Amino acid sequence: MNKSLCSVWLLVLLVGMWPVLAFQKEDPAAQTIRAKIAEYRQAHEMDILRELADFLSIPNVASDGENITRNARWLTSRLRRRGIRTRLLQANGSPPAVYGELPTPGARRTIILYAHYDGQPVVPTLWETDPWQPVLKDERGRLIPWSSLSSPVNGEWRLYARSASDDKAPIVAILAAIDALRDARIPLSVNVKFLFEGEEEAGSPHLPAIINRYADLLRADALLLCDGPVHQTRRMQVFFGARGVVDLEMTVYGPTRPLHSGHYGNWAPNPAALLTHLLASMRDTEARILIDGFYDDVRPLTETERRALAEHPHIDTQLRRTLGLARTEGEGRPLVEQIMQPAMNIRGLESGRVGAQARNVIPTEARASIDFRLVPRQTPDKVRSLVEAHIRRQGFFIVHQTPDIETRRAHANIVKLEWGPGYPPARTSMDLPVSRAVVRVIEEAVGRSIIRLPTLGGSGPMYLFLDVLKVPAIGVPIVNHDNNQHAPNENLRLQNLWDGINIYAHLLGRLGEVWESVERRTGSMK
Amino acid sequence: MNKSLCSVWLLVLLVGMWPVLAFQKEDPAAQTIRAKIAEYRQAHEMDILRELADFLSIPNVASDGENITRNARWLTSRLRRRGIRTRLLQANGSPPAVYGELPTPGARRTIILYAHYDGQPVVPTLWETDPWQPVLKDERGRLIPWSSLSSPVNGEWRLYARSASDDKAPIVAILAAIDALRDARIPLSVNVKFLFEGEEEAGSPHLPAIINRYADLLRADALLLCDGPVHQTRRMQVFFGARGVVDLEMTVYGPTRPLHSGHYGNWAPNPAALLTHLLASMRDTEARILIDGFYDDVRPLTETERRALAEHPHIDTQLRRTLGLARTEGEGRPLVEQIMQPAMNIRGLESGRVGAQARNVIPTEARASIDFRLVPRQTPDKVRSLVEAHIRRQGFFIVHQTPDIETRRAHANIVKLEWGPGYPPARTSMDLPVSRAVVRVIEEAVGRSIIRLPTLGGSGPMYLFLDVLKVPAIGVPIVNHDNNQHAPNENLRLQNLWDGINIYAHLLGRLGEVWESVERRTGSMK
Repeated sequence: MNKSLCSVWLLVLLVGMWPVLAFQKEDPAAQTIRAKIAEYRQAHEMDILRELADFLSIPNVASDGENITRNARWLTSRLRRRGIRTRLLQANGSPPAVYGELPTPGARRTIILYAHYDGQPVVPTLWETDPWQPVLKDERGRLIPWSSLSSPVNGEWRLYARSASDDKAPIVAILAAIDALRDARIPLSVNVKFLFEGEEEAGSPHLPAIINRYADLLRADALLLCDGPVHQTRRMQVFFGARGVVDLEMTVYGPTRPLHSGHYGNWAPNPAALLTHLLASMRDTEARILIDGFYDDVRPLTETERRALAEHPHIDTQLRRTLGLARTEGEGRPLVEQIMQPAMNIRGLESGRVGAQARNVIPTEARASIDFRLVPRQTPDKVRSLVEAHIRRQGFFIVHQTPDIETRRAHANIVKLEWGPGYPPARTSMDLPVSRAVVRVIEEAVGRSIIRLPTLGGSGPMYLFLDVLKVPAIGVPIVNHDNNQHAPNENLRLQNLWDGINIYAHLLGRLGEVWESVERRTGSMK
Repeated sequence: MNKSLCSVWLLVLLVGMWPVLAFQKEDPAAQTIRAKIAEYRQAHEMDILRELADFLSIPNVASDGENITRNARWLTSRLRRRGIRTRLLQANGSPPAVYGELPTPGARRTIILYAHYDGQPVVPTLWETDPWQPVLKDERGRLIPWSSLSSPVNGEWRLYARSASDDKAPIVAILAAIDALRDARIPLSVNVKFLFEGEEEAGSPHLPAIINRYADLLRADALLLCDGPVHQTRRMQVFFGARGVVDLEMTVYGPTRPLHSGHYGNWAPNPAALLTHLLASMRDTEARILIDGFYDDVRPLTETERRALAEHPHIDTQLRRTLGLARTEGEGRPLVEQIMQPAMNIRGLESGRVGAQARNVIPTEARASIDFRLVPRQTPDKVRSLVEAHIRRQGFFIVHQTPDIETRRAHANIVKLEWGPGYPPARTSMDLPVSRAVVRVIEEAVGRSIIRLPTLGGSGPMYLFLDVLKVPAIGVPIVNHDNNQHAPNENLRLQNLWDGINIYAHLLGRLGEVWESVERRTGSMK
């Protein structure tokens, strides 16, 4: 999961115990799967761990072509070993996306399981152990030598390596789930396609081209995004969307060289003062965006989405305490509601110098770096145009290149705007039969209610699946929230791997049937 | 002249020719002095230059005790050679201030000539020549070997060395003026005291203690501050005050660690957004300070001050062109009027990162560095209290130390304020007989009108003379504006040295008489 999609997850205390669902009519098939998968996993823990450790020992930075190819070859061989037809998908010189197909006789639904096998770059000196030599540690951080390992392995132990969580664990969990179902002679309930990308951490630059090029191959009824962590309370969660994002760098100008603030202050325009007024005109301190029309395209939450939010664990109090916050933005509304709204974040300010480096000068320029988060149905283009119209109304002259001195002589209040490429938000309806079926199957798998998030607060290219591939996409994360994703000492809590195998096995074994049953009941047979 | 008092002077084109005053009743004594001084100077150019070069070859950074002592010894010997009684003034381990006394039989007025012999620290690698090995260069920058030098020396040539302008030239000009008057047997018109400070560029930390300790010794009727450059049009100017200054570092706080803007944006308070609103509430984009009561203590300009400003050369258009400014703050009012007002300058902003370093995070804090300029009768204490009251009214909780997490949990909108020591403004009345007499004498000396600046835009500890020593103080600068003061390759245009000798000679020879005559006419005999 890339940096935008999912990054710093907060370590909070477990918020009590969660109600075990009273499944009044638990399906006997689900009960069977749960028991069989547990049995298989217990018998094969060592094999599963060895397979994951083997995968993790191949360096996987997207720009490292040779090792990326080794990863793709490893994956291809592991899929083929399981009788899965594979193919490498490439476009415009991209790293290979590993594609696989596992048809299920009689299945009427096809799903894609998406994950990525590349990982974030590492700074090895910041790691306690080699990022590509996986090690196991117990709850107290003591190394468990591979040679002394035996089953049963403690679920609280952790495996340390780059991509242990992000995002090789889900791939190995999927492979193990297939093995477990076969071992128990439980047939799959859907046709399965696999799409394992090799440059997600680099921003998936070729994914649109790959999707377009292989549109026929990738045809499916739904996509499950096997990436990201579970909720910080350790409860399972699914997410149905991600916010869009568009970045903006703003520069306003003062005199062409720094001027003594005594001799020229009050006369030469202070760019920092100009910038503070512009920024203050764009966003208030309760996070409300003050730009005309900014909320016009925002689709209100559906009844289902509102209900899902209402059922969300109450973590705000604990979060405020951990983060040293006496108040929060949004007039005290819960975090989970706030991230359903568009946002304007000032991620950086820079002008002149502060503190010991400060000098009595009027700076030559002042800069702000902003990220806008978008929700359905906002678009980056519309947001850009609304923001520029607002800035013009504040009396600014907009340029997109650094202005020369003639331009600066000719125009007061010049602002240079540099827009990032951005991408739109995406949100799969939670009312779709597949959405309801995925939730139902996972709740069967874990035996309790799960957390449903209409949209992640973070951004990710989910729109590629919804808008380009045109399938509903649902995020089904399995790894621990405190996995040091993107950071040194990335790790995977083994219980999350065990739980993940169970969840993916249920989805493979049960989703088709439950999906059709939901459709039958809602009369929305396809 | 220290960094606050006078720094970057702008190179502007000469704004035409300035009207030569039609002195309807030019005093014959003034005519005589002018002629005699010119004659003496022409005959002794080489001696004067050698004396200055000798002085400049002694390194003079205030913290370099050994060399500072050498400078003080050199000065003492040069004063004594001229029959001036000297004494070293020190307080609390300060570098010695060189004091001298030259009584004039029959004179009824006593003036102090103040200058400083220390200079700004140097970075020798940035200099074209050794900062303490003075060299002469012609208008085209070509080196003139000392060995080939002969009179007459071109006034457009320049002497390069640290303190060539700031502030050893005025000291040597004063010594030469005394020599010239004696040579012409023109008696001094005032009792003269000399106060040559040795740590002005370090902020004059011991000057208040020295003034207090030697209050009797330093008793006088006026002080002439022989420091700073002439106007950028090359016209002579005098200044009657300097703005006060007080610095403020502000820090506002967000979460205790950087948070992902997608997952926590709209909820965790963004300190940069908070800071922009606070700053925007304090100052508008026309430089008007929006803090209640900020202008209450500002004494309106007197009729004389307003007239002086009206007669100021019109340099704004040229300045705007040079600085690439399409508009100026203060609704288009001239620079010289704007610097008579208090000012709030944002000299730095810092939060998170901008540009290529920007990350999608909510920063943990946002900082602003501010300098307030004060004018009579504002005080740093009152300004601090007005600013703090304003900030509280904006809903902030003020601290003066970095808040711990308990404080952050307990208070919303915390701002840490770190105030610099600051000092008050000072302005000598332009209507005092001595003020009018100084202007009259200099106009006689140069044969044309001079520029009168009620207050420098910059700040300097002139209040020490007015408020502690309790004498009127008037700035009488002589050096070129484009002298690279405080920077590498500091230099002195020789014509400014020649003009300076003439000006100081007139002040020594004529001030007492003109002063008394002004007093007689205004009936304000002391």
